[in-house]
Amino acid sequence: MANQTKPVLHGYFRSSCSWRVRIAFALKGVEYDQVPINLIRDGGQQVQYRFAGFLSVQYVQYLNHYKPGPRLLPADPKKRAQVRMISDLIASGIQPLQNLYVIQKVGAEKMQWSHHFIDRGFQALEPILKQTAGKYCVGDEISMADICLVPQVYNAERFKVDVGQYPTIKRLNQALLEIEAFKVSHPSCQPDTPDDLRA
Amino acid sequence: MANQTKPVLHGYFRSSCSWRVRIAFALKGVEYDQVPINLIRDGGQQVQYRFAGFLSVQYVQYLNHYKPGPRLLPADPKKRAQVRMISDLIASGIQPLQNLYVIQKVGAEKMQWSHHFIDRGFQALEPILKQTAGKYCVGDEISMADICLVPQVYNAERFKVDVGQYPTIKRLNQALLEIEAFKVSHPSCQPDTPDDLRA
Repeated sequence: MANQTKPVLHGYFRSSCSWRVRIAFALKGVEYDQVPINLIRDGGQQVQYRFAGFLSVQYVQYLNHYKPGPRLLPADPKKRAQVRMISDLIASGIQPLQNLYVIQKVGAEKMQWSHHFIDRGFQALEPILKQTAGKYCVGDEISMADICLVPQVYNAERFKVDVGQYPTIKRLNQALLEIEAFKVSHPSCQPDTPDDLRA
Repeated sequence: MANQTKPVLHGYFRSSCSWRVRIAFALKGVEYDQVPINLIRDGGQQVQYRFAGFLSVQYVQYLNHYKPGPRLLPADPKKRAQVRMISDLIASGIQPLQNLYVIQKVGAEKMQWSHHFIDRGFQALEPILKQTAGKYCVGDEISMADICLVPQVYNAERFKVDVGQYPTIKRLNQALLEIEAFKVSHPSCQPDTPDDLRA
């Protein structure tokens, strides 16, 4: 009976959108099943997935509203606006430019392309986080902004961005990766993680 | 004294982000000053503008909250979620891929690139709008979704997307362009519109 309402995540181990949702599930203590979608092989499977980037932020907001557990959007209006701003900068301003669907179109230049846009995105993000951060992106409570940040830093590293240039981003990412919800949801330990990428 | 609080819009006649804010000002009856930023000449001016895409959606939400006038986010939770979904699909899923900063990087292929991503975006958007639309994007009240839609259709036309393939998008755009707030904010009649593009 319990399984009737167990959500199913159709995702990909390395997709930042899937990872965002996995973190939110883990923070909220929601049990779920995973159905891997291979975004590289079988182009047909990708079609439904192209707009997952923005949908994952919507879904995290939905989860936050309907599931008990830690608030992912702060009650305080100013902090709430800061969380939304940081989440949107990442989810609209950086991630769409380096998602798989886009870089496949870019082709041979994809490493340089992704590096460029993530680097410019971090140049905008670093001074904002310097203002808003406490232990985490906005003050000392985990929020949707943290859920967006960690997968973006993972992508930055994949595309050889020197994250050390962004001390606040680097510090927050390290602190967040110590938290269980971010560990269990990490791309290195998902059902569809290839053996050579396993932690 | 009144001028002390008159907002200043730093924008560009043809930017969808500037246009979103102009529409929201017009709907809310807010008087404002415009300071044109030339996004083509003088690369330096653009730096601050690269992340305006997501900021314009944030700003429209802020305006909605703090200024009297029509609600740009419906009170009904389901409709509110639909408005956010449509706005985010456009502002995160389509617009970032064809903004000026990105297509300058794409270079010679920019027309084909933008056409491709807007077309794919509209393929996802059309069936959603078919479900949610009344007179406007979500039911019969103007919302943030409409503010995002109209500038995106304008861009689609610039990049030779056949909007006639998307009957709901086409109908909504036509209905919205009849409304005064969308007319006065149109890129064809702004202080920095070049003479040859004036209506």
